[in-house]
Amino acid sequence: MIIKSFNPPRRILMGPGPTDISPQVLSALSRPTLGHLDPLFVGMMDEVKWMLQQTFITKNEATLAISAPGSAGMEACFVNLLSPGDTVIVCRNGVFGGRMVENVERCGAHAIVVDDPWGRAVSAEKLEAALKQHPEAGYVAFVHAETSTGALSDAKALCQLAQQHHCLSIVDMVTSLGGVPVYVDEWGVDAAYSGSQKCLSCVPGLAPVSFSPRAVEHILRRPHKSQSWFLDQSLVMHYWSGSGKRTYHHTAPVNSLYGLHEALLRLQDEGIENAWARHEAMHQRLVSGLNTLGLKLVVPEGERLPQLNTVWIPEGKDDQRIRSYLLNQYNLEIGAGLGEFAGKAWRIGVMGYGARNENIALCLSALEDALENA
Amino acid sequence: MIIKSFNPPRRILMGPGPTDISPQVLSALSRPTLGHLDPLFVGMMDEVKWMLQQTFITKNEATLAISAPGSAGMEACFVNLLSPGDTVIVCRNGVFGGRMVENVERCGAHAIVVDDPWGRAVSAEKLEAALKQHPEAGYVAFVHAETSTGALSDAKALCQLAQQHHCLSIVDMVTSLGGVPVYVDEWGVDAAYSGSQKCLSCVPGLAPVSFSPRAVEHILRRPHKSQSWFLDQSLVMHYWSGSGKRTYHHTAPVNSLYGLHEALLRLQDEGIENAWARHEAMHQRLVSGLNTLGLKLVVPEGERLPQLNTVWIPEGKDDQRIRSYLLNQYNLEIGAGLGEFAGKAWRIGVMGYGARNENIALCLSALEDALENA
Repeated sequence: MIIKSFNPPRRILMGPGPTDISPQVLSALSRPTLGHLDPLFVGMMDEVKWMLQQTFITKNEATLAISAPGSAGMEACFVNLLSPGDTVIVCRNGVFGGRMVENVERCGAHAIVVDDPWGRAVSAEKLEAALKQHPEAGYVAFVHAETSTGALSDAKALCQLAQQHHCLSIVDMVTSLGGVPVYVDEWGVDAAYSGSQKCLSCVPGLAPVSFSPRAVEHILRRPHKSQSWFLDQSLVMHYWSGSGKRTYHHTAPVNSLYGLHEALLRLQDEGIENAWARHEAMHQRLVSGLNTLGLKLVVPEGERLPQLNTVWIPEGKDDQRIRSYLLNQYNLEIGAGLGEFAGKAWRIGVMGYGARNENIALCLSALEDALENA
Repeated sequence: MIIKSFNPPRRILMGPGPTDISPQVLSALSRPTLGHLDPLFVGMMDEVKWMLQQTFITKNEATLAISAPGSAGMEACFVNLLSPGDTVIVCRNGVFGGRMVENVERCGAHAIVVDDPWGRAVSAEKLEAALKQHPEAGYVAFVHAETSTGALSDAKALCQLAQQHHCLSIVDMVTSLGGVPVYVDEWGVDAAYSGSQKCLSCVPGLAPVSFSPRAVEHILRRPHKSQSWFLDQSLVMHYWSGSGKRTYHHTAPVNSLYGLHEALLRLQDEGIENAWARHEAMHQRLVSGLNTLGLKLVVPEGERLPQLNTVWIPEGKDDQRIRSYLLNQYNLEIGAGLGEFAGKAWRIGVMGYGARNENIALCLSALEDALENA
């Protein structure tokens, strides 16, 4: 096999993630690698931690970036909180709720699944009924922003119900963090996880997480060690405990963390509320254009994620052919449907650095061409 | 908190890893991010897989890079192969053998620990005795190149013993891969894991692994699912199964894989046997200089890793002070002792791109200065 250096073209990433990445973040990745115990690097980790707290809007001391993708962030929450025999109510309205069930079962715990239709928000009424029916449940888990469908759920209401029934809440914020309001402390979220490659517009490979003091106490009082050494937060927390107090756990992904530092700094400079407003404005512009093209959104108004727009593929149009046309003619990536929506819907991401006028304009023009000529 | 873009100085990394990284690899990291399902990216993953096979010297189809650091590579081997109640013989001659025991126990399996002194190779005789004493054992696990001590063990002999006793072998090749001979197929290794940031001279954050057909069969016939969803190789293998057959699992760390692709390409271009010879030559040069300085190596000749040189800290010399002096005066990082060797020894890495004449010369001069003047 003859192999050369890999020189990828510049794609415009408007799928479900990874998203467009700013030149500043890309350039930060190739800065000189430091040792992971270098005092300068440890200082940088302190800054990442502080900026993550501002982004999750929390004072949680246990706020850090797991050295692996979002799905490891999900696993970190489950394997640290759950013990075999525990009962978890999982609200499932898409692929990632289903993955939560997988995680619960692999912990030897029992999942009570509350299903909602794909493309709709999680129903607080159904969760409340399940909580009343299952007083043995110790946890409530749900996805704030379902990446497979584009539905936004009312995290505040769902976490309040969990608290009223003395349950810890585990919330998937992979696609919500940085794109729509997220208030970890105010809402009483006990364990939140996200991904670097969505609205934070960093490269994929890191999973920001945040654990409430209540969750940390629960972790430290576990009767048995967590089933994962790599994700064991009783160890990882010390690794992120700040300059001078740090203890070695694993080797941090140094250069990826440079990227996250720069991406979080971009967000700080813009202001998190301004970033939410920008996502909303770009979403409105996109939806208006999609309507003009005759494309219909899957998710009803009021439950839509601005940063992830799921549209039905018009009858008679070839899914794969149109996406390939966009990629080959315009270097534009939009997302395929996932799970129940495979072949039926497209997912158009308007996330982070990708939520810009020029991307929306290109996407609408290119789609118009593709629908006619692909 | 006022935060600015992070601009690290250029350090010369001669600790236990991360190691010096070539400008080509650093520059590859900041190439435009592709979607993880983009056909061009999937093609690049095929090339990474092929180059990893050349590096492990194996035809194993299940050869790939785990999307997380080396310690997750270790965990991937244990959680996929082991089931609760299994018995594993773990040879322990340093920190990382101890971490293997942790992993075994968190799988609900039973570890029979065969201890060897720190700084020495694993004893084949002791392993053989343990295998005879424990016919119930199904696995043998050991560290090929102990990063905490600098000792090299005879992987070929240990794997042969495992096979004779019908055990699967799990081998830590984190620090050996690319630095000393590694022959996965010829030696009959069943599960090998490594790290990107040692002799491959890529950034930290990826864990190359390779599973023999026998290990894959064992994984596919597990009575219960693995306790980890993120590391479940029955799923991850399909993600790396090549263009056209790929199924979504998680979002790959796209840009880190650009770096690994470029690092493996550097190694291919040099030739793996030439790389081993270069490590050996630089090691000889370093040892000769260390002798002149009156520094003594921890590991006896014949059991030494060329790429990781552990030296006793001379009596009366201040460990932290000397390492800080090297870092502050020369931007040179050498490693502290770990575990039993903390405060007693230094670890000098001569790995991958760092195994160059100019690094050895600088290290010896700087050490001479520091020993006198720090």
